[in-house]
Amino acid sequence: MATTAAPTLAEIHEAARRLDGIARATPVYPSDALTRRCGRDVHLKAESLQRTGAFKIRGAVNTIATLSPGERAAGVVAASAGNHGQAVAWAAREAAIAAMIFMPEDAPMAKVDATKGHGAIVELAGEMFDDALAAALAYVERTGATFVHAFDDPRVIAGQGTVGLELAEQLPEEGTVVIPVGGGGLAAGIALVLSELRPRLRLVGVQAAACAPLAGREPRGFTIADGIAVKHPGELTAPILERLLDDVVVVDDERISEAIVLLLERAKLVVEGAGAAPVAALLDGSIPGDGPVCAVLAGGNIDPTLLISVMRHGLTAAGRYLVVRTRISDRPGSLLKLLELVARERGNVLAVEHHREGMELPLGETEVGLTLGTRDEEHCAALLAALDTHGYEVERLS
Amino acid sequence: MATTAAPTLAEIHEAARRLDGIARATPVYPSDALTRRCGRDVHLKAESLQRTGAFKIRGAVNTIATLSPGERAAGVVAASAGNHGQAVAWAAREAAIAAMIFMPEDAPMAKVDATKGHGAIVELAGEMFDDALAAALAYVERTGATFVHAFDDPRVIAGQGTVGLELAEQLPEEGTVVIPVGGGGLAAGIALVLSELRPRLRLVGVQAAACAPLAGREPRGFTIADGIAVKHPGELTAPILERLLDDVVVVDDERISEAIVLLLERAKLVVEGAGAAPVAALLDGSIPGDGPVCAVLAGGNIDPTLLISVMRHGLTAAGRYLVVRTRISDRPGSLLKLLELVARERGNVLAVEHHREGMELPLGETEVGLTLGTRDEEHCAALLAALDTHGYEVERLS
Repeated sequence: MATTAAPTLAEIHEAARRLDGIARATPVYPSDALTRRCGRDVHLKAESLQRTGAFKIRGAVNTIATLSPGERAAGVVAASAGNHGQAVAWAAREAAIAAMIFMPEDAPMAKVDATKGHGAIVELAGEMFDDALAAALAYVERTGATFVHAFDDPRVIAGQGTVGLELAEQLPEEGTVVIPVGGGGLAAGIALVLSELRPRLRLVGVQAAACAPLAGREPRGFTIADGIAVKHPGELTAPILERLLDDVVVVDDERISEAIVLLLERAKLVVEGAGAAPVAALLDGSIPGDGPVCAVLAGGNIDPTLLISVMRHGLTAAGRYLVVRTRISDRPGSLLKLLELVARERGNVLAVEHHREGMELPLGETEVGLTLGTRDEEHCAALLAALDTHGYEVERLS
Repeated sequence: MATTAAPTLAEIHEAARRLDGIARATPVYPSDALTRRCGRDVHLKAESLQRTGAFKIRGAVNTIATLSPGERAAGVVAASAGNHGQAVAWAAREAAIAAMIFMPEDAPMAKVDATKGHGAIVELAGEMFDDALAAALAYVERTGATFVHAFDDPRVIAGQGTVGLELAEQLPEEGTVVIPVGGGGLAAGIALVLSELRPRLRLVGVQAAACAPLAGREPRGFTIADGIAVKHPGELTAPILERLLDDVVVVDDERISEAIVLLLERAKLVVEGAGAAPVAALLDGSIPGDGPVCAVLAGGNIDPTLLISVMRHGLTAAGRYLVVRTRISDRPGSLLKLLELVARERGNVLAVEHHREGMELPLGETEVGLTLGTRDEEHCAALLAALDTHGYEVERLS
């Protein structure tokens, strides 16, 4: 069934018919906040609101729809600890066939549970993703089940390409579309559609700095954009991307986390690292031109504990938290005096820590750590100045 | 211009025409997670994705659209520390007229800044909301500006009623619509439309336990659903609600915070306390019947630091955090031994605290506080059992 040729526009239209009533056509919204911030019209394609929280079900549903009765009976297999595994599990249940998902042993339990929750059998295999992949392929050999690739399959690319069909209806003729690129299935699918239907749109791919093979970088360590941390684009997707993307830009985790917080606070959308990468590139000013831009928010599946860390970090970076260490005399009333000053300057005390031991403190002094809720960087500066004026020696920790 | 009669369906259609191209028609999505959880079809009207993050601009835009040239020149006034103030500011800028917003002095700076960001002049007046209201009315006397009421005005109700027109197209003929009720503008508007166009839909209002006048309760203290903490429904809205709502139910903050976390994690939507109240009522099982339900997510403007607290609290309630206190011997290696045990049980250490002084500890022992990331309540129980088996005396703090 699988071929090695890129899907045609007709095949992508066919995928859209198969997805009708199963996947959502996700909305495109103008973002007032980002438009002001970036000085150009910014629209958001909220694919984070797709069922299961990511575009991946489009490719999975389309692939499964092409299976013969015999193939359906043998079920489907995937190797993934992320959105793809959940999407294949979900799409298989929608099609009433069996799904087996292989994940590395250290896969977050939340992802394991979510995938099981969609009715799949999950098998943990090996330490690395490649071990899970090998186990999945061995299972295919053994059982004749159909392997659903995360990106390098024309049926998958055709499914993801339906995002492009929606964009062709939702966007103006001219401007820029910014798409996160991991394995390249989404970007290839969108590019195949828009290069034909909206040839005047400029297409820009975004990769995470920690894993940006298209920008010729060696992978290095953690990124919160785990959804696009793919070491090699596909054999099928890479030439499509090379031919059809006008640019590939790279963003770091710091910007991505800023984008996540901005989308959460201003657009009211929960977006995962990979999904927020296009907005991060916009904040970076690295998207060429000054015309309208549409950022494809590819997914929203971010672990809530990670989201809390990102929010705290983002709020700190935006001057919305101030963490300081200072010293007060070790006498009744001196902490109160400090806190009165903070209250006058409208700092909102979130935590107070006292340290008396283990430090080189002058006798009769104690160290105090304050975590304050603040308005912005200007407010932080005013607070620091007030503390200084009142004789506190302050060390700023964030 | 203002009348004291409820708006007609024709006036609400007229409001929809005025809002066309200014406000968004917000989507209704089925929620797989809530459908499973509640055992009935649950849909979400994502009005949190409205511009400025709440439905309030509908009423503000409609009211401002009715002003005469003379009234436009004199500008508009509102008293509000919340979504209404931001909405009037935003709608006034859209209409290119001046807006003056009065807020109590302790209004969160984030709200003040957001309102100013929409181009309004903000004046802080008095300690309580009623002081701000008095200042706004005095300003109206002085300047002839038009006071835009937050709910008790037929033009405002007609604007909010456009949510009902959208629902009439988006929902099936039968089922239940759950609407948060503060002043009652949104609920009255929706009810006026649906009772005419979809008379077989059941309409349920939701109030926060801390402020539920429709349920005959005295206001008491803080609620995270500040958007619906209104002491008295309006003179105009109250009789409409009494006539057209089939039920009014009450939810507490604990449930509301659970609903916020669920919407964030599963629906990828940021929803504020008032907006999440209908989902909280569903989680409570207090919405009568077992047919399909649509929860109106009225707004998404939750302060990010409050959202972090709610998420931490919600994750703790769901067994996703475990905070314990135990004692270890005050010798090298004993903390390591404890942490090895935790790691074997797949607890994710988020914080470790040591306490040596100020407590009645046996000599040679030290107290350790652990904050652990966990999978669910079952995982918490397994961790606690393992600690117990290995001889640790554990006190669970959350």
